[in-house]
Amino acid sequence: MHYINKKLLINKVSVNKIVKQIGTPSYVYSYNLLRENILKFKKNFKKINPLICFAVKANNNIKILNEISRLGLGADVVSMGELMAALKAKIDPKKIVFSGVGKTYEEIMFAVKKKILLINAESKSEIEVILKVAKKFNTRINIGLRLNPNVDALTIKEITTGKQINKFGLSDNEVIEFIKLYKNSKLVSIKCLSVHIGSQITSHIPYLKMLNAIQKIINKSNYSFEYIDLGGGMGINYGKNIKLLNYKKYADQILKFITKNNAKIIFEPGRSIVGNAGFLVSKIIYIKKTKKVNFIILDAGMNDLMRPALYKAYHRIIPAVKSRIKIFKRHDFVGPVCETTDKFLSVKSYQKLNEGDNVIICDVGAYGKVLSSNYNLRSKASEILIKNSKILRIKKKENLKTII
Amino acid sequence: MHYINKKLLINKVSVNKIVKQIGTPSYVYSYNLLRENILKFKKNFKKINPLICFAVKANNNIKILNEISRLGLGADVVSMGELMAALKAKIDPKKIVFSGVGKTYEEIMFAVKKKILLINAESKSEIEVILKVAKKFNTRINIGLRLNPNVDALTIKEITTGKQINKFGLSDNEVIEFIKLYKNSKLVSIKCLSVHIGSQITSHIPYLKMLNAIQKIINKSNYSFEYIDLGGGMGINYGKNIKLLNYKKYADQILKFITKNNAKIIFEPGRSIVGNAGFLVSKIIYIKKTKKVNFIILDAGMNDLMRPALYKAYHRIIPAVKSRIKIFKRHDFVGPVCETTDKFLSVKSYQKLNEGDNVIICDVGAYGKVLSSNYNLRSKASEILIKNSKILRIKKKENLKTII
Repeated sequence: MHYINKKLLINKVSVNKIVKQIGTPSYVYSYNLLRENILKFKKNFKKINPLICFAVKANNNIKILNEISRLGLGADVVSMGELMAALKAKIDPKKIVFSGVGKTYEEIMFAVKKKILLINAESKSEIEVILKVAKKFNTRINIGLRLNPNVDALTIKEITTGKQINKFGLSDNEVIEFIKLYKNSKLVSIKCLSVHIGSQITSHIPYLKMLNAIQKIINKSNYSFEYIDLGGGMGINYGKNIKLLNYKKYADQILKFITKNNAKIIFEPGRSIVGNAGFLVSKIIYIKKTKKVNFIILDAGMNDLMRPALYKAYHRIIPAVKSRIKIFKRHDFVGPVCETTDKFLSVKSYQKLNEGDNVIICDVGAYGKVLSSNYNLRSKASEILIKNSKILRIKKKENLKTII
Repeated sequence: MHYINKKLLINKVSVNKIVKQIGTPSYVYSYNLLRENILKFKKNFKKINPLICFAVKANNNIKILNEISRLGLGADVVSMGELMAALKAKIDPKKIVFSGVGKTYEEIMFAVKKKILLINAESKSEIEVILKVAKKFNTRINIGLRLNPNVDALTIKEITTGKQINKFGLSDNEVIEFIKLYKNSKLVSIKCLSVHIGSQITSHIPYLKMLNAIQKIINKSNYSFEYIDLGGGMGINYGKNIKLLNYKKYADQILKFITKNNAKIIFEPGRSIVGNAGFLVSKIIYIKKTKKVNFIILDAGMNDLMRPALYKAYHRIIPAVKSRIKIFKRHDFVGPVCETTDKFLSVKSYQKLNEGDNVIICDVGAYGKVLSSNYNLRSKASEILIKNSKILRIKKKENLKTII
């Protein structure tokens, strides 16, 4: 993504050309960035040779999942819908793990039928349902036990998952108890110990604490897991100059860990694979100048992108065409939805903009489209993939008539 | 809604019967409560004889809108989708007003073609677009001017709309300027002065300030508006013992106002019409007992009901079957979505519950279903209307295959 002659290009295609063809608001994904992220991720953990299961909850577009699959990744799914999507995208069932605190009997049955790699169990009740399914199918189901390591991920509260007060996972005592209970079971085979401490993590320290918690379980239980699922959570740079995760320190520690414990590592990254590869392209409907603020009213709303309203998330907004003229006044980029939370960004100054101009909300590839709704009876945006300088429409804009 | 023989009934129909027929999660609406709310609203403002335009953004189910229409109400819409829904529900176009900061050219064209009562304009740019449409159709378009009265609604920040720092409405100077500019225009006819200061308002004081702000405009401009649109925002009781809006004081003041100014009042209530008439019925998938917390894992998630995650909104949760046994331990009611924000309620104690039991999340008729999404690739819930003790399915549960 860069400017040539003041015009913004995504993989050599100008944003204004995309808008002409597809309209706004549209989610635009860069294949190059997606591929680059995956290659980087693999390189960072090369010595570990992990199974990388993309967290489908971050982005469930079938074409995106299919590209991710072609680049060698599996999938981490959290519902029957996500499992169906992963299979439709031709992801190998043997590379699919099923996580989540509320898997129903029907979902577990479906997963077992599809012969996926692992079901990561999160409660005693869930294990009992898995046993029921195993009896019904007269089979032995491969499971993981999800440990809640009670580690603070040092990320924002809303996306912390590995504290005791969160709904996720089992306590260390429970894990040890269940290993004893089920290690010789004919209905389940405990293949994996799984953890996930949160999202958008930018320090390796919580991860090291997490590894320690896992090591303790292994030592205490004297059980050898075939897989250790370390979850995902690797933070990305949303454009505020933050220090990012030190992958090397994390990888080194994991290498020590697997050398000692002889287990295959599973990762479940989402944001770090697809976050910066997605852009929300939007047109300025009106510019409303008040005394203190210029309101830039976009045709994308909170129904298209929930993260700012839901998590107060920061997303850079850049113009499709650059100008040298700068306006030193507060600019609020807002949507057309009838709600004060429908606001994307507030900045102290911005380049000169005109009604009808296009702008790009950055880093929305993860937790963007998947969280969109029909609030204010607005149809969901289209999705486009830029690959080999071609504009591929990978999801049509919803037809209003189908949602009314 | 009450218990008979420990079983919860909604308009004489037991919740467990509804679940048997329709499944969970489901939005259930009570026709009786809807009707009661409308009659109460009318009674509260009887002497004023207002035009009541239901705020479709609160609930856009066609059948609900149709029932509201049969009870005499019009509609306040904020998008082409909502206008289409209102028309489909047979709401009289002459009772429809169109609000919102980002109406596009296409939306304004559509509204003009459908001959709705009013377009409430919110910016100079929007008025210019309205003029363009009027020229194209060679007609005179009835508009309202939305004033931003810079009044604090004393409600939560996220749903305040009438402060200068919000994106909504025009300043008093702008309103006066536009009256001068357009009062003799052949393209627009200024019929209405419109205000809306926020949502879930429980004190009449901000409303009185708002009336003062309007009176000032009228005095300064010496213009007589046919309509004064006071918006909605009347708060409801979400079950925390709060003081509610004193309707009498508000109505008395409005009566004085219209006696003086001879205008027809428009209201745009949403929450107060439908909020307490909607219930989200959900089944307990698992009960996960940890040291400090019993996690009650429901089959409804934040994708079904966003308000707790988005606004930290409080919604009571009541059991479908009452028990006398009380458990004195913290209970967290959470959904199955893989996210810490997917939590509805935390209470210090609760009656004994079992896996498979049904519970009801209360007061979700407004801003419930309309904000729902397919997050975690979960299909949107069905909607049911209870009318004359009959279970009417007014929206089918989404088929997973259609969203993948």
